[in-house]
Amino acid sequence: MKKFNVAILGATGAVGREMMKILEERDFPLASLKLLASARSAGKTLPFKGEEIVIEEATPAAFEGCDIVLGAAENDVAMELLPHAVKAGAVVIDNSSAYRLDPDVPLVVPEINPEDVKWHKGIIANPNCTTIITVTAVGGIHKLSPVKKMVASSYQAVSGAGVGGMRELEAQMKALSAGEPVVCETFPYQIAYNLIPQIGGFNAEGYSSEEMKLQNEGRKILHADDLRVTCTCVRVPVMRSHSVSVSLETERELSLEEIREAIAAAPGCKLVDDPANKQYPMPLDTSDQDLVYVGRIRKDLASDNGGIALWCCGDQIRKGAATNAVQIAELVAAL
Amino acid sequence: MKKFNVAILGATGAVGREMMKILEERDFPLASLKLLASARSAGKTLPFKGEEIVIEEATPAAFEGCDIVLGAAENDVAMELLPHAVKAGAVVIDNSSAYRLDPDVPLVVPEINPEDVKWHKGIIANPNCTTIITVTAVGGIHKLSPVKKMVASSYQAVSGAGVGGMRELEAQMKALSAGEPVVCETFPYQIAYNLIPQIGGFNAEGYSSEEMKLQNEGRKILHADDLRVTCTCVRVPVMRSHSVSVSLETERELSLEEIREAIAAAPGCKLVDDPANKQYPMPLDTSDQDLVYVGRIRKDLASDNGGIALWCCGDQIRKGAATNAVQIAELVAAL
Repeated sequence: MKKFNVAILGATGAVGREMMKILEERDFPLASLKLLASARSAGKTLPFKGEEIVIEEATPAAFEGCDIVLGAAENDVAMELLPHAVKAGAVVIDNSSAYRLDPDVPLVVPEINPEDVKWHKGIIANPNCTTIITVTAVGGIHKLSPVKKMVASSYQAVSGAGVGGMRELEAQMKALSAGEPVVCETFPYQIAYNLIPQIGGFNAEGYSSEEMKLQNEGRKILHADDLRVTCTCVRVPVMRSHSVSVSLETERELSLEEIREAIAAAPGCKLVDDPANKQYPMPLDTSDQDLVYVGRIRKDLASDNGGIALWCCGDQIRKGAATNAVQIAELVAAL
Repeated sequence: MKKFNVAILGATGAVGREMMKILEERDFPLASLKLLASARSAGKTLPFKGEEIVIEEATPAAFEGCDIVLGAAENDVAMELLPHAVKAGAVVIDNSSAYRLDPDVPLVVPEINPEDVKWHKGIIANPNCTTIITVTAVGGIHKLSPVKKMVASSYQAVSGAGVGGMRELEAQMKALSAGEPVVCETFPYQIAYNLIPQIGGFNAEGYSSEEMKLQNEGRKILHADDLRVTCTCVRVPVMRSHSVSVSLETERELSLEEIREAIAAAPGCKLVDDPANKQYPMPLDTSDQDLVYVGRIRKDLASDNGGIALWCCGDQIRKGAATNAVQIAELVAAL
């Protein structure tokens, strides 16, 4: 079996570290693993399969000899360095938003559009975390009958802002429990005991960048150019699973039975829909595993077209980022 | 000026205590204040205007001589005792859900339908907290052109489950910060760092009782029998302000300018809508005051009928319960 020289760009962040964990868990066929980060982290080590790997500085020359590069850096770093990885002959799977809407770059959720990896030209983009979780939840429905519109309200974990977001929530909770003042660095306002209805900057129409991703990336992943989505993205004091309340309409009106069967059969999904017995998706239950839980499935009472409402939760760092990227790497390895 | 003999049924709960505070703050014309609670609390005292009032046991005979009774008890206690208050000649303003949909009982948000207090037959119902906050937010829009449908996702504070809910969240946070095990009594699952998509029991269609209130009570308050609402109600680890993400359609298509002007002019509302400068409603900002903050106003991208999306927050204990009840008492006092 072929083995691959893999590098992780941004190995010290929340997503980079999780990528290491998932490469190990899924026993990805590695010939070697290179960890790349900023000069600040170079020389430090991170454990992998019982050994310590020395972190190297991420430079244009660092990608020589790499077959696959997993990008877990911010947009600016991604755009500066990843083209060098492509030139060095690597296939790049990038978690930043820099290339997601580039028509030359496939945007892939392996459970939904695995075939799109085939037309890559060096870069494959990993979608936004909320988008991955939502399209994984509705992918089975979309196969039955195309989703035409969605109204989505998100409840997004602090892990979406990286390790700093998680540390900040924990530190604020500890401070408040001890009666000490709260420090805000990662988020613009206190997130402990609060909600912040802003993730990313706002466009002229009043939508945040995060809110537009579900429509724009959703269209590309689902091959549904006329999908319309209104989204409200809200940061909540939850550690690492995103939740989304979705109302959607499909081309053909679907029965609740069809929908439940489709979700139960959809790869990457777990149907958790027995409210009478208090069984529904919750972010604590979906953390640190890969499935998107879907439940609270019912008819949308405000819809003229037989719409349905549902509630889904998934781990932001894993399925929302690192796991999805490693799954794409597995598709690349099988090309 | 006429003064009133007022009693609070359920004075020791979160809403009952807040009613005392608000009667004092708003200088309600009191001849006397009687505090009624279960036998367990009888004999204890609570402070009011610098004096200690002795709590009396809530019995059928306890309402003799009362002009106005503010009900802050659960449904079963309300239904058992409040008819005796009516028989004793008092006007009852009840915060339980027992009488809200009774056609003989007005359901009132003073900023929206103050005229409905006039036809009371002894009982006036105080609406559900999420409903009060949402209809206060959209009341100005509804006057411009009737709201036809809403898709709402709520982010509900633990105060909605009373003092016990607030204590449980705080205790769980302290336990987790100290590395100790979490105790769940009020909520079915851990609420710290979690979300619970259940408030109340579920009907055959899969909606929780809380979720149906926004449609059923909203219709009655807004005098809009054909209003259709799909709601998803979620408990979040926030102390005492509810937030709601709303997409709505009106009979006539409205411009964003009309909508912003209507909200800015609507009684009980504060327009907080400057996202570019990070100004939007947040539950920490709306706690311990009476206004419903409304912002994130924008066109609903998934609507065929010029719908709009907005985000609103309000204090659950005050405007969502105690303040609204005292405002109704002020309308009764002026009859």
